[in-house]
Amino acid sequence: MGRILVVGSLAYDSVKTPTGKVDGALGGSANYFGLSASLFAPVNVVGVVGEDYKESDAKLLTSRGVDIQGIERVPGKTFHWAGEYSGDLNEAKTLKTELNVFEHFHPKLPKQYQDCEYVFLANIDPVLQAEVLEQVKSPKVVAADTMNFWIQSKLSDLKKILQRLDVLLINEGEAKQLTGASNAVSAAEKIVDLGPKTVVIKRGEYGFLLYVQGQYYALPAFPIKQVVDPTGAGDTFAGGFMGYLAKNDFAADAFAVKKAAMYGTLLASFTVQDFSVGALKDLTMDQVEKRHLQYREIVSINA
Amino acid sequence: MGRILVVGSLAYDSVKTPTGKVDGALGGSANYFGLSASLFAPVNVVGVVGEDYKESDAKLLTSRGVDIQGIERVPGKTFHWAGEYSGDLNEAKTLKTELNVFEHFHPKLPKQYQDCEYVFLANIDPVLQAEVLEQVKSPKVVAADTMNFWIQSKLSDLKKILQRLDVLLINEGEAKQLTGASNAVSAAEKIVDLGPKTVVIKRGEYGFLLYVQGQYYALPAFPIKQVVDPTGAGDTFAGGFMGYLAKNDFAADAFAVKKAAMYGTLLASFTVQDFSVGALKDLTMDQVEKRHLQYREIVSINA
Repeated sequence: MGRILVVGSLAYDSVKTPTGKVDGALGGSANYFGLSASLFAPVNVVGVVGEDYKESDAKLLTSRGVDIQGIERVPGKTFHWAGEYSGDLNEAKTLKTELNVFEHFHPKLPKQYQDCEYVFLANIDPVLQAEVLEQVKSPKVVAADTMNFWIQSKLSDLKKILQRLDVLLINEGEAKQLTGASNAVSAAEKIVDLGPKTVVIKRGEYGFLLYVQGQYYALPAFPIKQVVDPTGAGDTFAGGFMGYLAKNDFAADAFAVKKAAMYGTLLASFTVQDFSVGALKDLTMDQVEKRHLQYREIVSINA
Repeated sequence: MGRILVVGSLAYDSVKTPTGKVDGALGGSANYFGLSASLFAPVNVVGVVGEDYKESDAKLLTSRGVDIQGIERVPGKTFHWAGEYSGDLNEAKTLKTELNVFEHFHPKLPKQYQDCEYVFLANIDPVLQAEVLEQVKSPKVVAADTMNFWIQSKLSDLKKILQRLDVLLINEGEAKQLTGASNAVSAAEKIVDLGPKTVVIKRGEYGFLLYVQGQYYALPAFPIKQVVDPTGAGDTFAGGFMGYLAKNDFAADAFAVKKAAMYGTLLASFTVQDFSVGALKDLTMDQVEKRHLQYREIVSINA
C-alpha cells in the first residue's frame, strides 16, 4: 500500500443547481479528493484554511484517517467559491471567487509527507504545483489536474509542469483547449507529446477516455437519474484513481490504470448525487463495491 | 435469420466539414442503414428516388443483397440535403433541404416485404411511419428514429407512433427535447412511459445508453482520431443494431439488445471516417469483427 499526497484547495462553496442550493458548504479539490482517496489508502493533505475553518470539517478528514498536519491555519477567511449550474449541469457559471487565505499560499510539506509515493497536484496555479514537486523525494506516480484559467493565463508554467507528470487528469473541454484538438482521442495523443505518459480525459456523465502506453481505453459513467450537484466530481474521480493505484501499489501497468480510472468514475457518480460532500462523507467501500458490481453488468459485453 | 424492412430517405447530400467537402454524394437514412444492416441479414428498402438516381447507387445496394423493389422511381429530382459541420462536428447546420420527389411520397410495401420480422422506420414524418405499420403483418421488432423537426412540428403524430414501437433509437439531445428531462438516464425512463419498451440513446462519440427491461446499459464509442464526416452515423448505428437482432433472430433478450447496440456503435465508427458512404461501401464483416476485438480490449474491465 502506497501513501498519497494531495495539494489542493480547501474551500467553502455556495452552489445553486436546478435542484436547490447550499451556502458555505464544504468544498475544494483537496476535500473531495481526500474523502474519495482515503477509502483506498492513507492520504496526506497540504493546503491552507482561515480562521473560519470548522473543527467538524477537520474531523471529517481525520475520521477517515486523512493526515491534516499539512493544512496550514492562517489569519483571514478560507477560500470561497460561488457558482451556479443550469440546464444540463455540464458547466458551472462562476459567480464569485474569493481567494482569501489562498492568495498568498505556498505549499510547505511536513517532513513525513516528503516520501509519499503517489502525488496528486489538484487544479491550482502551476507555479504552486512546481513548488510541491521540489519538496517530494522520489514519487512513483505524479498526477495533476488543470483548468481553462491556467491554460489561458499561465501556459508556459503549465507546460513545464506537464513535462514532469506521469499522469494528467483533465476535463474533455480543457483537453481540447490545451491542444487545439477537435476531439478527445486526438487531444490525448497531443498531451502525451507535452509530457505526461498517461492521459485521463474526464467526460462527466460519459465517463472517461484513457490513453496509456499507446493504447486507448474508454468506459461510460455509472448512470445517475438525478444529478444534484456536479461540483467536485472531477476531484472525486482523481481521488478514486490515485486511491486505487496507491492501494495496490501499481505504478504503470495499463490494466491497473484502467481499473483506477473506472474507480474514479464510480466514486464521482456518488458525489453528484448530493450537494457538497454530502454523498461522500459517509460513503463506505462496501457501497462502492456494490456499485462496482452493478457497473460490471452495465458495461459487460460477455454473456 | 430474420428479414429486415427499412423505410427512409434516399438522398444526394452536399456536406462540408473541417476536413473537406463533397457535392451530390450518396446519402439518406435508408442508404446508410441498408449498407450497415446488410452485413448481417437480408434488407428490404422502401423509399423514393428521382430521375437523377444513379444506376451505380442502385447496384451498390443490390451488390450487398439489398432488395430494392420497394424503391419507387418517379419523375423529378431525388431528395437533396446540404449541411455543414464545424468545430467539434457534433451538430450539423442545415444549409438546404430540397424534398423534391420525397414531398409527395407515400410508402408502398411490395407484397413480399409485408412479412419482414424486423422493421425500421428511419427518421421520416411520423405520419409516413404510421402508413408503413399499416402494411406490415406481424413484425417481431418495430424500431424507429425521430428528430427535432418532428418533435416540434408533429408531436401528436409522433406520440401515436411511439405507442406502437418496441424500440426507439434517438439522439441524446432529441431524447431530452422529447421528454424535457435534463439527462439521458432520466429521458430514457420517460420515453418508456410514452410506449417503446426499449430505448437506445445515441451519444455520438460517447457511444450509447440503453434502457431495456428496467435496466440501464452503457458503452462508449470506438475511439476515432479523425472524424471526417458524422453524416449518417445514426442510421448506420440503427443498421448494425437491427442487423444483429435479425441475424440472430433475437427479439427481446436484454443482453442481445445490448450486443446489438454495441454493433450499432461499432458500425457507426466506420461511417464517420469518410464522407458519404465511403467507409461503408466496401466494408466487410471481417473488418467489423476485427474492430470488435479491439473494442473488447478497450472496454473490458476483466484482467
